[in-house]
Amino acid sequence: MTGAGSTHTPDARFDRTIRALGQSGVNRLATTHLAVVGCGGLGSIMAEEFTRYGIGQLTLIDPDVVEESNLPRLFGAFPADVGRPKVEVVRDHLARIDENVRATTVQDRVENATPALREVDLIVAGLDRVSTRQWLNAYAVQHRTPYVDAGVIITTSGTEETETGTAPHIETMDGYIQVVLPGHSACFACLNRGDPERARIERLTEEEREEELARGYIDETQLSPEPAVVPLNGVVASKTVQLVAKLVTGYAEPPDYLHFEGVSNDLTTLSTTPRPDCPLCNPGTDQDLDLEADFDLTPAENDPDPETDQ
Amino acid sequence: MTGAGSTHTPDARFDRTIRALGQSGVNRLATTHLAVVGCGGLGSIMAEEFTRYGIGQLTLIDPDVVEESNLPRLFGAFPADVGRPKVEVVRDHLARIDENVRATTVQDRVENATPALREVDLIVAGLDRVSTRQWLNAYAVQHRTPYVDAGVIITTSGTEETETGTAPHIETMDGYIQVVLPGHSACFACLNRGDPERARIERLTEEEREEELARGYIDETQLSPEPAVVPLNGVVASKTVQLVAKLVTGYAEPPDYLHFEGVSNDLTTLSTTPRPDCPLCNPGTDQDLDLEADFDLTPAENDPDPETDQ
Repeated sequence: MTGAGSTHTPDARFDRTIRALGQSGVNRLATTHLAVVGCGGLGSIMAEEFTRYGIGQLTLIDPDVVEESNLPRLFGAFPADVGRPKVEVVRDHLARIDENVRATTVQDRVENATPALREVDLIVAGLDRVSTRQWLNAYAVQHRTPYVDAGVIITTSGTEETETGTAPHIETMDGYIQVVLPGHSACFACLNRGDPERARIERLTEEEREEELARGYIDETQLSPEPAVVPLNGVVASKTVQLVAKLVTGYAEPPDYLHFEGVSNDLTTLSTTPRPDCPLCNPGTDQDLDLEADFDLTPAENDPDPETDQ
Repeated sequence: MTGAGSTHTPDARFDRTIRALGQSGVNRLATTHLAVVGCGGLGSIMAEEFTRYGIGQLTLIDPDVVEESNLPRLFGAFPADVGRPKVEVVRDHLARIDENVRATTVQDRVENATPALREVDLIVAGLDRVSTRQWLNAYAVQHRTPYVDAGVIITTSGTEETETGTAPHIETMDGYIQVVLPGHSACFACLNRGDPERARIERLTEEEREEELARGYIDETQLSPEPAVVPLNGVVASKTVQLVAKLVTGYAEPPDYLHFEGVSNDLTTLSTTPRPDCPLCNPGTDQDLDLEADFDLTPAENDPDPETDQ
């Protein structure tokens, strides 16, 4: 069982995947084209797992470059990559993992990447901008593209003594995944998800933000980086890949909504249906809306400092 | 927020981890020495996450070389690594991730690695040999070393038609993690874990195995590779890292036993206590046993084909 004499055929490589999903399942993964929106602490782990799993084609979308503070969570990124575009760092890593994977990149905000989104079978996102999620959800519903949205958030309060000093008191380590199958399951808007105030702040220009800060309408804490740790991202990213594989190969039906809390280890799944009066899912209702105005479907270029890292 | 001007200090790198765990938590991770036993589809993901998280020192233990069929699950391994020892491949990857991590390797079965085990604060294992788990559990209880054991298993039955052909019917995708804190929580033996027949087969020499096959005492299916997929491993490995971080930093108390089922997304946690008549945890009981004989604590060299990949 030394590898030296191994035959380098796809079947040898995917032998144990085939024992789970069959050749048909592996073929299905190989002919699927995913968009991974956000190549930070969630998207980079998903991109690596999708590629090792045998997904054939990935379009990586993210405007950011690698920061030193991303390294504790950004799979495929190493210290020498600081300053390089995340999409290029992740793409190069995927090419090392599997020479057959086709990975293309869009180093821009997803709002400016609609031509690339039109090519894909399914969109997967790991973002931390509420406004970007809302835009992507509206795009997915409009274009009938399945959309799987993953997110994490750690909440802390005060500080407490530990054996080695003081540390923030961790209250919750939440991860969630929403599967939006337009026409079948609830969309982001159906569930009224996303803090409108946070989305509003995200949409401010830098100048507007400075002014609101000066006037006390928003405070620094609303703009500072969130706590983040790799194993929470690993759980949520991996579970997202598992749900996407269920959708793609059909071996089981994924839940429409999944919530994981990492302190208590509670895991909750929900079934959803589109809300009859959701203006996105049912544009004929009284609550019809102007997508461009209400969900900002126009290219967004007002934020010089997008933050997509989880 | 471009990375080009970032200051390369440890604080900048771990900024968002510090926002979760505090400087004291990060310090605690940095001064912890873990053994990662098994550098396959679970251990390699754990090793990468531990290193990105900032664990200071890792001892990697695994006898195997990389096979082509490991590539879909072995983080840090690329096609050119086929034939190289897993421990060296993972060690080189960890050095790329963080130039400060101290990673040492033992390319041998853990039964032969007791000098290395004596150095560590905590043992983490991702194995698929029942007999190796039993040995490690006995070692941990005897030496009062905390031991976190993770495993995955996919069960399938028959085949079913899919849109693209036939595939095995996936029944369950199970992952579990047991936290053995000697004297405080149940050990592997307390819970009677591990199929004795499987452990017996694992301990056969190749010659004995051939003979049992020929005589029909065991059949080929008991020796063939198990189904395996990366996202199940990713969930279980990440959750293991999360539990270890709770133990090391004390930010929350981990469960003693955690079970995850990936088809239903059921997650169960249990509290345990050492069983009063467990011969390992309470060697003074009537059920005392001969560790060497019953748990094979002597170096095991009879298996030319150890299989530690998940």
